[in-house]
Formats: sequence, C-alpha cells, structure tokens
Amino acid sequence: MDLKPTKPLSGFIELLPVQQRCFDFCAARMLSVLKNAGFNQLDLPAIERAEVLTDKDNWDEIETQMFLFQKGDTKMGLRYDGTVGLSRYVAGHLNDLVFPFRASQFSKRYRGERAQRGRYREFYQMDMDIMGVNSLSTNYDAEIISVIQRTLNSVSEFIGDSAVRIGSRPFWDALFDYLGMTDNQKKEVFVLIDKKDKMGEDDFAEGLKDALDDTKKENQIKSVFTNGYSAFLNKSDKLDAAISELQDFMNTLDLFGVKNAEIDLSIARGLAYYTGLVFEFKSLKYPELGTVAGGGRYADLAGKFSKTKIIGVGAAIGFSRIFVALMESGSIDLTQFESPVDVAVLCMGNENLSYAVSVLNALRDENVVSVAYLDAEKKFKNQIEYADKIKSRFSMIIGETEKENQVVALKNMASGEQVAVSVVDAIKTIKAI
Amino acid sequence: MDLKPTKPLSGFIELLPVQQRCFDFCAARMLSVLKNAGFNQLDLPAIERAEVLTDKDNWDEIETQMFLFQKGDTKMGLRYDGTVGLSRYVAGHLNDLVFPFRASQFSKRYRGERAQRGRYREFYQMDMDIMGVNSLSTNYDAEIISVIQRTLNSVSEFIGDSAVRIGSRPFWDALFDYLGMTDNQKKEVFVLIDKKDKMGEDDFAEGLKDALDDTKKENQIKSVFTNGYSAFLNKSDKLDAAISELQDFMNTLDLFGVKNAEIDLSIARGLAYYTGLVFEFKSLKYPELGTVAGGGRYADLAGKFSKTKIIGVGAAIGFSRIFVALMESGSIDLTQFESPVDVAVLCMGNENLSYAVSVLNALRDENVVSVAYLDAEKKFKNQIEYADKIKSRFSMIIGETEKENQVVALKNMASGEQVAVSVVDAIKTIKAI
Repeated sequence: MDLKPTKPLSGFIELLPVQQRCFDFCAARMLSVLKNAGFNQLDLPAIERAEVLTDKDNWDEIETQMFLFQKGDTKMGLRYDGTVGLSRYVAGHLNDLVFPFRASQFSKRYRGERAQRGRYREFYQMDMDIMGVNSLSTNYDAEIISVIQRTLNSVSEFIGDSAVRIGSRPFWDALFDYLGMTDNQKKEVFVLIDKKDKMGEDDFAEGLKDALDDTKKENQIKSVFTNGYSAFLNKSDKLDAAISELQDFMNTLDLFGVKNAEIDLSIARGLAYYTGLVFEFKSLKYPELGTVAGGGRYADLAGKFSKTKIIGVGAAIGFSRIFVALMESGSIDLTQFESPVDVAVLCMGNENLSYAVSVLNALRDENVVSVAYLDAEKKFKNQIEYADKIKSRFSMIIGETEKENQVVALKNMASGEQVAVSVVDAIKTIKAI
Repeated sequence: MDLKPTKPLSGFIELLPVQQRCFDFCAARMLSVLKNAGFNQLDLPAIERAEVLTDKDNWDEIETQMFLFQKGDTKMGLRYDGTVGLSRYVAGHLNDLVFPFRASQFSKRYRGERAQRGRYREFYQMDMDIMGVNSLSTNYDAEIISVIQRTLNSVSEFIGDSAVRIGSRPFWDALFDYLGMTDNQKKEVFVLIDKKDKMGEDDFAEGLKDALDDTKKENQIKSVFTNGYSAFLNKSDKLDAAISELQDFMNTLDLFGVKNAEIDLSIARGLAYYTGLVFEFKSLKYPELGTVAGGGRYADLAGKFSKTKIIGVGAAIGFSRIFVALMESGSIDLTQFESPVDVAVLCMGNENLSYAVSVLNALRDENVVSVAYLDAEKKFKNQIEYADKIKSRFSMIIGETEKENQVVALKNMASGEQVAVSVVDAIKTIKAI
C-alpha cells in the first residue's frame, strides 16, 4: 500500500509543540487583556448558511473564494471573518444582550483561494467589537484602539511596539461632495484609494485620470496623500465636520494613553461595511508584517438580519499572520517554551511502580508539571535520555533504595546535581526554582 | 429586502455569554490538568485531504457523513475526530517529537449527517494520546485513565463523579478463537457486541443465532454479559493471557488511585483502530449523558502514513456533549458566571471624560475587570441601569465633584452602599471582595 502524504494541505498551519506553546502563551496573554476590558468572549459556529456569508448569487464565483458545500437544499460554507457570524448572533439575541455590547472572538477563519506566501487558508484572528443600538459615542472607537494597543503591548516582548494610523471615511465622502464628483466617480476613486499602496503612484495617477479626467480634482485628491487635510479646512461644512471629528478623536486617543497614533487619510480598509473612522496598526519592529490589526466604525452591522440599527466599532488582530510569520522567520526566541515539564519521574523496574506512581500523583496534586516514564523495565540510560530530550528541568529517579527509604533521587537536569530527598522537600525545591 | 435568518444552522451550538463563560471555565480547568500531566497541546488543521479522512473511495457515501469539498483536483473535508490529523502529524514529525509522545487536543470536529437531538454537527472534543515507537507499556493505559478521571474531577462541581468500565479486545479475539469461529463470524459477532446496547437483548440473540447457528456457542458468548470472563479461565493460553492482562490492569489502575473502575467486557468502542484494552467513562450523577469519555489502545496508529509502528493509547472527552447538554437541561448553576465585570465606570458628562478614562486605565493596569460607559452625555439613570444589567459588582460614578476631589464614588451594586474614595483605595476594596 502506498503511504499517504504527511504534510498538511498547502495554506494550512501546523506548528511543532514548542511553537504551539508560544502561540498559546501569546493568545492567553492577549485574551486576558480583552477579558480584563470586559469583552464577552464568543465562540460562534465556523459554518454559516451561504446567504449569511454573502449577498451574491453567483455560486461559481464565491466558490473560488470560500469553502462551500451543500447539505440537502442548504448551501453553507466556512466563515472568512468574525463579523458575519457576529452580526447574525447579535441580531438574533437583541433581548439577551446588554448594549453597548462588548464581544471578542478568537477563532479560525477560512479562505478558499489558492494559498500564497503569508496568506493562509485557515488562520486565527482575534476580534473585538463594541455595539450600540441606534447610537454609540466615538469615545468607544478610541477605547477599542486603546484596547488593541494594550493587547499588542501584552506581547511586546515578542512583537515590539506598535503604531496606529487613523483614517476617516466621512472625510473622503465630504471631499468627494466638495469636488462635485458623480456617484460612479466616488466609487471608482475610493477603490483606487483603497488599492493605492498595492498599485504604486503612476498607476494610481492614471486611474484618477481615467475616473475624473480633471487635472485640478486629480491634484486635490493627490494632495491628501502628501499634505493631509490641510488644504480642505473651511471649504465646506461637511469637510469641516469630518476634519474636526478627526482632530477631536486624536485628543480622545491621547486621553486613553494611546502612543504612536497619527492621522493617515490613506487608510481606507476596503469597501466593506465601515462608514466612520478607520484605523490600522503596524509593528514598528517588524514593518514587513504589514497591517497587524485593523478596524473601524460601521453604521449598520446587522441590517441584513434585523430592523434594529446596530452601530458598532470593531477590529481584528491578525493573530496567525503575526505569530506564524515571526516564528517562521526565527524572530521569536522560543527558549522559554522549550521546557514545559518540571519533573520526569523515572521508574527503575515494575516492582517500584507503585511507589513511583504515588510520587507522580503527589506531584500532580501539587500542580507540578510532571510526566513518568512508565516502561519501567527499560534501562536507566533510556529513561534519563527521555528526561533529557523533553528538556525536563528535574528528573526523579526511583529505584529499590528510594522506595525503601521513602525518598526520591532528585536530579537537576541543568547542573547535574543529584540529592536524595523526601517528596515534600523535592516539591519545595522544584517550586523554588 | 427580506431579513435573513438569525438562528445558526441546525446541529450547530451557539451559547449566550454567560453559558460561554461556564464552557470556557470548564475547558480551562480541564486543559490545565492535561498541561500539568505533561501533554503537548496541539492545534491541527480542521481540514484534511479526503484520503486522510477516509480509506473509502465511495465519494457519494462519505459525502453524506462528512463536510467535503473540492479545490482544483484536491478533495478535502472537515475532520470528524482528532485521531486522523494526529496520526498524520506524528508520522510527519517522527524526528521532531520525543517518544513516548504525549499529545492533547481541544478542538472542533464536524459530522455532516443530519442533526439529531444531542448529536451536533460541530462539537468540541478533548483528546489525549500517549504514543510510543514499536512498544508502549500498558502502564500508560492506566495513566491515561487516571488523567481522564483527574480531568473530569476538576469539574466535578458541575458534572459530579464519574466511573470507568474496562473492556478488552484481546479477550474477544481469544474467545472467538477458542470457540473456533470463522473470520466472517468473528466480524459479524463483534459488530453485534458493539451494537448490543442499541439493539436490545432479543435482537442481539437473534443476531447471534443468524451468525453462528450453534446454541452452545451463542450461550457462551451471552454468558460474558452476565458472568464476565469467569467461565473462560484455564480454557486456552490466549484466553488466560487476555484475562490476566485485564486483572493486572485493574491492579495498576488501583495504584494510580482511579476510583469507580470495573471490568465490563461489553465495552467494545466500535470497529475502529482499537486493538487492546478499551474503556468508557460515565457520569454517576448524569447517566443520561451516556458515555462522557472513551478510548483505548491501538497497535498501529500511523500505518497509513509511515512504516514506523506507532503504538498508542488514547481517549476523547465529549466536551460539548457534556456541557451543552447540562446547560440546556438547566443542571448547571450559572450564577457564578453571571458577573464577569468588577467595575463599571460611569462618566457624567464629556467634561469628565479625561478623569474617567484615567480611572479606567488605572483599573485595567491593576487587572481589575472594568468597563466604562462612554456615552458620557447619557443620563445617570441610563448609566446605572447599564451597570445593573451587566451585573457589575461595583460601579464608579465620576462627575464634577469626583474630578475636583480626585476621588470616585464607589458603589457596591449588591448592597447599594456608596463611598467617596481615592482610586487606589477603591481598587483595594474591590480586590478584597
């Protein structure tokens, strides 16, 4: 029989135990920041009805982007983000939840496209959203940014410091109106702005020319990327309102103690549901990671599901994107995750098993991370090799003498030092180091 | 536009925040037992190649049982258990792992069948496996059972005590040989034994008759269910070996301190890869849950992937099955999960926002679970109502007076008592309760 492949499918992440411990450690740290900030951790289904995942009817097209399947008459698929499920959930539980409702999610998402370098088909994101019914102060937008920064800072020993740039959808809306652009032009130009980073200056300029064919307007739009909003103060009430919202917001961010924040109107965050302020975080230490977190405000989260207007501000941290990339590039020192086991109990012969197991149970009762080598007939050499290979901090050698004297031979695996002590004293020594 | 459905697909679990906190609390407790016992927590892809998921070629048939899809030429699907991925992973990392290798997994699994009561299409299981290359002492089988019992005991306040029953594949093999059954009869009868609980006595007896047509043999098999192995001592070397393995094993279990363990040869654990001892846990308090955990020994885990023989013992705890059922039936008291927030900071007017946010940051820096009501222009009534609804233990009311005096009005939401204290003293009070 031919052997089957042992590699995971391309685009799927598979970590070694030491990497997984680092991954889990960082996730736990970050999730505790979110818990601390009163977010309700949700764990929603990974599979949704196709109609929840998309408004499109073009089955063939969306099939290339998602993992879709059909059961009976029901088309369904794997979620590609945390927002689709959240909006359904919130709309379905309006009376069960307290608003402003704070939700966090740490879950796997799926993209069915062909895998590319750094783009996974299964990946974790960590989301946080604050949602209000009918209204929600932009103070919450500032809080979300503050919480993201706290979350990222909780793992700064691995990813360094981060900076956030703030953009504004209302500014562009106001500018487009001020320039007297048609609805079609607005759409075309916003697509260009969103893709500007990827297309480069020349293509961007050409795109603007194609869309507007008006040198003055084209230059005014281009000026935003070099001079920000400065040229557009006192031009229209709508522009002034958008600019002053942005300025006020930067002051609020300052109140929240957010560091490294600046306005960057080129931040667009795609064409999706955002309608207000938008933001993106970058790692200062690892700019090559690109956007490590991003989000913004949406005026109507659950419109597809409910007549109740849910206004929210939300963000996602690209968890797998950050940590898998940094582990793969060797940027994270995994030393501290190499020795998860405190004690390896080595049992010399089945006649000592009873005593060895009583020691193991005592260790576990005291929350000492402990394993036992239970092929008790194996030679000492094999057993100590095992303790060495798993990088156990201590080993406890248990033979006839130890059983008779009700002690253990406690060996510090780093120093090689070995002492005969009672189990109680051994536990004290282990816990002290 | 028609509104879309807000309910999840049938067979998919969706918890309210308070239920999710209970679910997460129990998972964390149980996972810490596994970590404590030196298991390497793995997080493998949820999607595998179809050829990894099944050996069958009958696409149509397996499609009814699983979630399958095709990308390009590759057929793939969602895992239905933790073992398929684990065997691939271990075979692919033979040189990266230390054996005996201890792996745990807590992850979602998927069944594509039509949803039934108590059978989910997406559910969590918690697996643990210990694997050796070429050999592995049955002492590890006892350890796995001990670890499962510790894991279940860590949440006994919710699920009560558990009992374990031990079966033996080698016993049946030896008995079938002793009775001189053909290979076909062996298979047929084992299917019957595995399904005995579901089919009832009469159907079982009839099945035996169809398969064997030999009253004496039929009665001998039936006697196992009433009298255990007692009639089969000193009948054949193979039977004696299987029986003495089982007896020795019960002694080892006793060494490990496993309570409520008994031999029950009717435990079969399906037709899958188990080849040695098998076991099932039941809740003594909630027998209606059925099997809450089960597992056994397999002689060749990764044969499909590697020529190296991986012998293992593994088990899975039906995590969703237990906790979702108990929450749905109201058997779990959720009171302790109702108040996750220590303090709601209520800000009376935007002019006090700066001070309120500084208080919020101080609370979060001290790991006090805290939220702020940031629609600062809302009336006191709305704000205190929010604190009340989220069942916050305290509120901190911050207005002009508090800002001027650099204090907070700390209100105990249960007693109604309110005092003006410094933030530092407020934190002390909150942490003390």
